Amino acid sequence: MATISDIGVSAGINILSAFVFLVVFAVLRVQPWNDRVYFPKWYLKGLRTSPIESGTLVGKFVNLDFRSYLKFLNWMPEALRMPEPELIDHAGLDSAVYLRIYLLGLKIFVPIAVLAFSILVPVNWTNNTLEKTDLTFSDLDKLSISNIPLGSPRFWTHLVMAYAFTFWTCYVLKREYATVASMRLHFLASEHRRPDQFTVLVKNVPPDPDESVGELVEHFFLVNHPDHYLTQQVVYNANKFSSLVAEKRKCQNWLDYYQIKFSRNPSTKPTTKTGFLGICGARVDAIDHYTSEIARISGEREKVVSNRDAIMPAAFVSFKTRWAAATCAQTQQSRNPTQWLTEWAPEPRDVYWDNLAIPYVSLAIRRLVIGVAFFFLTFFFMIPILFVQSLANIEGIEKAVPFLKPIIEMKVIKSVIQGFLPGLALKLFLIFLPSILMIMSKFEGFISLSTLERRSATRYYIFQFINVFLGSIITGTAFQQLDNFIHQSATEIPKTVGVSIPMKATFFITYIMVDGWAGVAGEILRLKPLVIYHLKNWFLVKTEKDREEAMDPGTIGFNTGEPQIQLYFLLGLVYAVVSPILLPFIILFFALAFVVYRHQIINVYNQEYESGAAFWPDVHGRIVGALVVSQLLLMGLMSTKEAAQSTPLLITLPVLTLWFHRFCKGRYEPAFVKYPLQEAMRKDTLERAKEPNLNLKSFLHSAYVHPAFKEVDNEGDESDEDLVSTKRHQSKHSSKHSFSSLAEDPERSLL
Amino acid sequence: MATISDIGVSAGINILSAFVFLVVFAVLRVQPWNDRVYFPKWYLKGLRTSPIESGTLVGKFVNLDFRSYLKFLNWMPEALRMPEPELIDHAGLDSAVYLRIYLLGLKIFVPIAVLAFSILVPVNWTNNTLEKTDLTFSDLDKLSISNIPLGSPRFWTHLVMAYAFTFWTCYVLKREYATVASMRLHFLASEHRRPDQFTVLVKNVPPDPDESVGELVEHFFLVNHPDHYLTQQVVYNANKFSSLVAEKRKCQNWLDYYQIKFSRNPSTKPTTKTGFLGICGARVDAIDHYTSEIARISGEREKVVSNRDAIMPAAFVSFKTRWAAATCAQTQQSRNPTQWLTEWAPEPRDVYWDNLAIPYVSLAIRRLVIGVAFFFLTFFFMIPILFVQSLANIEGIEKAVPFLKPIIEMKVIKSVIQGFLPGLALKLFLIFLPSILMIMSKFEGFISLSTLERRSATRYYIFQFINVFLGSIITGTAFQQLDNFIHQSATEIPKTVGVSIPMKATFFITYIMVDGWAGVAGEILRLKPLVIYHLKNWFLVKTEKDREEAMDPGTIGFNTGEPQIQLYFLLGLVYAVVSPILLPFIILFFALAFVVYRHQIINVYNQEYESGAAFWPDVHGRIVGALVVSQLLLMGLMSTKEAAQSTPLLITLPVLTLWFHRFCKGRYEPAFVKYPLQEAMRKDTLERAKEPNLNLKSFLHSAYVHPAFKEVDNEGDESDEDLVSTKRHQSKHSSKHSFSSLAEDPERSLL
Repeated sequence: MATISDIGVSAGINILSAFVFLVVFAVLRVQPWNDRVYFPKWYLKGLRTSPIESGTLVGKFVNLDFRSYLKFLNWMPEALRMPEPELIDHAGLDSAVYLRIYLLGLKIFVPIAVLAFSILVPVNWTNNTLEKTDLTFSDLDKLSISNIPLGSPRFWTHLVMAYAFTFWTCYVLKREYATVASMRLHFLASEHRRPDQFTVLVKNVPPDPDESVGELVEHFFLVNHPDHYLTQQVVYNANKFSSLVAEKRKCQNWLDYYQIKFSRNPSTKPTTKTGFLGICGARVDAIDHYTSEIARISGEREKVVSNRDAIMPAAFVSFKTRWAAATCAQTQQSRNPTQWLTEWAPEPRDVYWDNLAIPYVSLAIRRLVIGVAFFFLTFFFMIPILFVQSLANIEGIEKAVPFLKPIIEMKVIKSVIQGFLPGLALKLFLIFLPSILMIMSKFEGFISLSTLERRSATRYYIFQFINVFLGSIITGTAFQQLDNFIHQSATEIPKTVGVSIPMKATFFITYIMVDGWAGVAGEILRLKPLVIYHLKNWFLVKTEKDREEAMDPGTIGFNTGEPQIQLYFLLGLVYAVVSPILLPFIILFFALAFVVYRHQIINVYNQEYESGAAFWPDVHGRIVGALVVSQLLLMGLMSTKEAAQSTPLLITLPVLTLWFHRFCKGRYEPAFVKYPLQEAMRKDTLERAKEPNLNLKSFLHSAYVHPAFKEVDNEGDESDEDLVSTKRHQSKHSSKHSFSSLAEDPERSLL
Repeated sequence: MATISDIGVSAGINILSAFVFLVVFAVLRVQPWNDRVYFPKWYLKGLRTSPIESGTLVGKFVNLDFRSYLKFLNWMPEALRMPEPELIDHAGLDSAVYLRIYLLGLKIFVPIAVLAFSILVPVNWTNNTLEKTDLTFSDLDKLSISNIPLGSPRFWTHLVMAYAFTFWTCYVLKREYATVASMRLHFLASEHRRPDQFTVLVKNVPPDPDESVGELVEHFFLVNHPDHYLTQQVVYNANKFSSLVAEKRKCQNWLDYYQIKFSRNPSTKPTTKTGFLGICGARVDAIDHYTSEIARISGEREKVVSNRDAIMPAAFVSFKTRWAAATCAQTQQSRNPTQWLTEWAPEPRDVYWDNLAIPYVSLAIRRLVIGVAFFFLTFFFMIPILFVQSLANIEGIEKAVPFLKPIIEMKVIKSVIQGFLPGLALKLFLIFLPSILMIMSKFEGFISLSTLERRSATRYYIFQFINVFLGSIITGTAFQQLDNFIHQSATEIPKTVGVSIPMKATFFITYIMVDGWAGVAGEILRLKPLVIYHLKNWFLVKTEKDREEAMDPGTIGFNTGEPQIQLYFLLGLVYAVVSPILLPFIILFFALAFVVYRHQIINVYNQEYESGAAFWPDVHGRIVGALVVSQLLLMGLMSTKEAAQSTPLLITLPVLTLWFHRFCKGRYEPAFVKYPLQEAMRKDTLERAKEPNLNLKSFLHSAYVHPAFKEVDNEGDESDEDLVSTKRHQSKHSSKHSFSSLAEDPERSLL
């Protein structure tokens, strides 16, 4: 095991590399050319315009104000300055609550670390068990539980600490759950009128030979909710149409481009060729050509709407009041529980349209298939990778492409291939894993993006738990572990894992530094979006709209980000009693990540949907799970230390923790799943008093139209676009004072 | 192990004893004096009057018609004759569906037995593995899987059979679930107006300093369900009052008795003494005394009602329509999910009044306490019993009560004590176990009798599974098993159990005959109620009402009966592949039990409540559980038989079975948990059309009054009693033709 100085060197390197990232970031972000990469959120909000359009020629590309380089870390206090309510207003509740996970990490681990360093570390240090053995050991091990002699009464300290840490964690978790739940309820109560408050998604409408789906839905709800039913919107299978729309968008873009070209140079009419990529085919007038193309595609819409086969047995049903929508979403409609299924309509942006019409039996089978597939993915993913690796060696390549043999045989290339190829398959797999998991979730049939992300996050966490956490502690592939575990007794498993834990502390410290510190610092640099944006900007961007689209603000990425944080919670809780030396590293990760992600959420990410922090029960549940795992492993470890009298006391810990979980579930989870009628009624009453003449029907009219249709509609309907842009301009002015602290960006004052 | 002839003799003895029970039953039931013991259901329905009141003196006590003795088994076809819809009408859906569990056993096991005996038994029989070994074996073993040599390809037969049995069981289970679900929905749809259809139980009403609970509830629901709220009924803590009522009932009874006495002999006014048991104290006029006593107790009611402390933070809230009640019961009311909890009001008879006002935190703690207590009860119940046994020996008794020494030292008594005492503690424990489990469920805080019984049944099944099923297969106490299991690997446990299974076939055959056959035949004899009824009738019965109360019709006893059936399902499924010889015994049990319980349900049991077959999901779930256990044990057994290639095929079986369970849960369980709005609306509409002037408020007025108050109310309110008795008389006449088949009882034709 590494000594403290080894760890120190490693930490130094990682801190340095993180620092380099931060410096590079500080330099890059003040360059006007990168403005759209580092502040896309503000562009999307319409609160920032390109600094390139004004200023001197050089000033357009390079920031010449040296003062802005000196204050290169001032984004940090800036990121922390925005108060939470404003952050919720700016980026949504999801993002604000996501940040609270990092804060939660600090709240849990800082007091635990203080306690551990003031009590556990001295207790561990003042032994000389390791010195008596002839094992090689380092100062790091002297700080851990390994330094306590077998059967020593000092283990009582660890036992008491395990209780203290558990109670503290549970206390913080409970308080946080309460806070988030009330934040969510407050958010739901205070937000503006939104279509999903009045709307319920009805799935599995039974087929009827005499009526169309729309009529059937209308009749059903007129009969069963006579006083409350307002309107409905059937769901179309628009997959085919979506591709048409994409094509149309391209045409529109070309049309804009040629129109601008023509307006700048009215003497020559721009022409294009109708063939592949405008290179071959007959030469035609470009503006006429694209105008007629657009008209043709718009005509297709009518065909899809009138085509009965494209109507899916699902509909969005809207009610006159929130109260009625809440009751309808939470009750069963028909005596056949697989028909007329109602649930809350997701926010329009959040709907995953492809999955709205999967029959019940198909859904059940999909769940089974994905369950089995995920099991094999988790435990047997190494098998295809080993297979690919066995193929992708020098001999295999030489056999497949013999003419490349002379090149491959060159020494340099040969060594690169030999060093690079074996790891490539695994690297590629790990890069694509989140996408694979997302595809699995999509296949499983969830109907909203937020649920898809939550499900993928769960799976990703399980994968990481087995392949990173357990896989690092007990070496061997997941399948070998599985094989070991089913051949070991229930008491043996925690022992096997528990015993190896203290020995792996160094490994995990390095892991935290590389994956955590450097990873987070790399996140703020946004290297990939930076490169892609500039490439696009050089080669593809034709119109202002293109440039807007070339910006890739990205999202928080709940499905990959949250499992990563959870891994740190797991490590922290497991090592808190065993090797408290890990804790400062984890605390530093949480602090750094909190600042970085707060900055990114304020300036970069553009959340695609708003689920109102619906993910919190998952976060809470996984931390409790990590707590139970840590308790079981501690029990296993203690039982090998001949501190057997501790077992009954240690066994009550997971029992109490699981009970705590059930308690919290009953107490707080309903806030994330149900919508209390009292709240709905209060909002309805308030609204009726404020706006007695509200025309809700027109408000809801096109809320749940498939985005492909909507796009076509909007293009034809200029007034709608006006409305949007007016809103945008309005917000530009009206909200300036509230964002004044952020409007004072260094670049802004420069121009 | 026993030979086939051994089993034959044992079967003969048990069949004979069952036959004797049936003959005794046939003789006893036609005696007029026992009429109330064997036909209490008809008395309670008011469809039968005592045969003693008419006929000759001797005919009153002994049945002299010898023809009725000859047809002594004709109760069997009689019991089977009543069609199911009539049975539901007569005894309720709970009882009718309970009988379907026995039928389900026949449906599952008869085809399985046919298949097993035509395929598996020949395959097993035509080996000579056992003959080659020097083990002692019997013909019975030759029929079982033990007779197949290690690694034989014949195991493929067992594998295919395991699949066939699983698919058949699942198919029958699914069909049955569908049938019961539709029966339940039909029952709910076709039944008459019942208060619980309109009523919701509101628990955890938050305290309010300004308003009483009643006002608070009224205001809350007027605000949040303005168009639907009808009325409310707060819940009183009537435990103290209940005892007063019991006292009053006794007084009333004495009053009746003296009034009858006085009316028969108007010359002497009856007197009584006010002291203990009417033996000492001042002599007073009996009628006056009891009249004033009753008045005094009635006065107490006002005190309780006006006492604010007796009001509990819970209420029954009634709505104008079933639709509104259904929506309110299934939604969350307040933003704090531990306040204003709403759920379906149980049927008034079904309410367990003591548990209506337990706060949320207390409930959560009670669950934990009972969970831990049940764990210890299941695994460590032998410890106190062994302790008691160690105390309750001859020496212990002599020490405790030295003056009894000479008696105890007598040889006869000594041997009785020595033979009897050690088993006594265990016997007593097992007799009281269902009551202990029921007390645990009550402490846990369930609010309806049906839930209490269901919960107790689950616990009783788990107890039996561990202590009877596993305990018989692996000898040793439950605690020793637990200790073994946690020290064995996950693959080892099914092996350990699986290997012992074939060897225990004889034991379980005997168990089925003694517990099943003789037990069921004993059930029909009703020895205990018979004796108690006659004792009461001799010593205690003073008035006609007393006689009515002396009848103890009993109930099905779901909490003890269902776990017993489930044990047979478990045995049948486990042994179907291993030793099919067990199947005929199980089939005979199911057939006999079906006839006996059908007879009892028609003639004897008086169900206390009607839950609408809400227990079916439990029944279904436990059979699926038994199926999975059988598959795992088969896997364990097969892996010791060197038929390892079968493992992957066997592992898919539990996966598929569990998936099947989830599928059924989603497809059918909602019918037992939720109430579809479509149904509610249909009933509401129908009712509005039929009875436009219905006064629902008066109908619901006293539906959910605590039975103690109700009793007092009823006494004062004669019109109410009239209504009941009128109904009863009405049903006596109107339903006579529908029960004509049963009205032709031999005894009836006799009088």
